[in-house]
Amino acid sequence: MGEVIALDRTTVSKEMIITFAREFDPFPFHLDEAAAKASLLGGLASSGWQTGALSLRMLVDAFLSKVASAGGLGFKDLKWKAPVMVGDTIGGTVTIAELRRSSGHPQWGIVTLDFDIRNQKDRPVMTMRLANLVECRTVEASA
Amino acid sequence: MGEVIALDRTTVSKEMIITFAREFDPFPFHLDEAAAKASLLGGLASSGWQTGALSLRMLVDAFLSKVASAGGLGFKDLKWKAPVMVGDTIGGTVTIAELRRSSGHPQWGIVTLDFDIRNQKDRPVMTMRLANLVECRTVEASA
Repeated sequence: MGEVIALDRTTVSKEMIITFAREFDPFPFHLDEAAAKASLLGGLASSGWQTGALSLRMLVDAFLSKVASAGGLGFKDLKWKAPVMVGDTIGGTVTIAELRRSSGHPQWGIVTLDFDIRNQKDRPVMTMRLANLVECRTVEASA
Repeated sequence: MGEVIALDRTTVSKEMIITFAREFDPFPFHLDEAAAKASLLGGLASSGWQTGALSLRMLVDAFLSKVASAGGLGFKDLKWKAPVMVGDTIGGTVTIAELRRSSGHPQWGIVTLDFDIRNQKDRPVMTMRLANLVECRTVEASA
């Protein structure tokens, strides 16, 4: 608990933003530069959901692929704090906030993970708290 | 407030699941049928993050594209309640839980939306609460 996982960084290209937005979040401010400049975002920016998906992928690479992850249960309090613009590089840390064994299913553990995603200027762009199911190493299994 | 928005339905194919998982959630239980059968999911199932993205898209089509949406602020209490398996059709409703004017920026409103996403058996697969920014129709603007 309290362990901090450093994430690798990902640079978000115009093509990535447009491809994702076309499928899942087709607003002009995620698809068209002129419309984006006229919007509250001030320029072409990723869908917030894409920022979340990229953060998840960074966590899989840095941590979840190394534990016996059985999938996510849900998350709390996702906040988009600043837009992720074309060419921005995002990264950050994930802190293990809680780790407990499931009371009903003691072979499973629930790990609570706090994301702090920042851009290349160290400005926070997204925070969220994810609850993820992991298989527990029992005495039998680790023998 | 209390208004219920009916979403269209989306059928989730094996190709959609694998394409999304490869990019954002590359676990064997989202990529490989044999590994998926041996997992807690019991078969090939979508990334929970994909279920969220598809739900967001259904909300854009049914509602957000018709109001002056300026983007999401964040999410609360997302829960994945059952896996979305290959061939499942998801849909559901979004209820307007709250609608208020921003105190600091009265030209903007914040709409709070409760998602209830279900599969073709009417079984809940995901719930979440989205806070979304919308432009307010002022007396001047609507004249």
